[in-house]
Amino acid sequence: MQAIDTEWSKTEQEVAKEAFDKAYEREITALMALVQEKAVAIAQLDDMWNLHDFLSAKRHDIDGKYDYRYSFLIFVFARLVKEEWLHITELEGLAQEKLAKIAALSRM
Amino acid sequence: MQAIDTEWSKTEQEVAKEAFDKAYEREITALMALVQEKAVAIAQLDDMWNLHDFLSAKRHDIDGKYDYRYSFLIFVFARLVKEEWLHITELEGLAQEKLAKIAALSRM
Repeated sequence: MQAIDTEWSKTEQEVAKEAFDKAYEREITALMALVQEKAVAIAQLDDMWNLHDFLSAKRHDIDGKYDYRYSFLIFVFARLVKEEWLHITELEGLAQEKLAKIAALSRM
Repeated sequence: MQAIDTEWSKTEQEVAKEAFDKAYEREITALMALVQEKAVAIAQLDDMWNLHDFLSAKRHDIDGKYDYRYSFLIFVFARLVKEEWLHITELEGLAQEKLAKIAALSRM
């Protein structure tokens, strides 16, 4: 993933920050619910270690995914749209060129 | 921790295996209950990562602790008695010398 040097206007920065936080909140909320569901279903040792493996993977995934550097935001948003944590319409207010890139990348 | 070369009679092997399995079962059962308790109490992201850290530590701990090699069993039992997963009386049937060593080490 190569950084993209783009300018982000003040308005775009606000739109981006709000969308970013919204997606993060959604994913974390869903993940906490899923972890609780998996924990309640623990019946044997393997279930517990499977939960541990699951948490390790998710932590790594989330730490890497939510990178709020402007040079990476296009990719970040494309992934969030692809994974349905964000709807492309929630990015309205960004320049058309950015939206087009995000939409195209999200379909890859 | 240095291995101890001791002979384990057939009877001692049976006593040891039963005690070992009992302690393991107890610790795992208690751990699963604790993990479920911690999971239910997850209210924010940090709670979830704390649960992850807790599972990482416990997995490492348990993997290392339950070592059923006869040359290490004296130490294993001493630790299990110290941590109260096993009562020294549950090791009755082992030679007095072994019991004395386990009891002494468990108080360290």
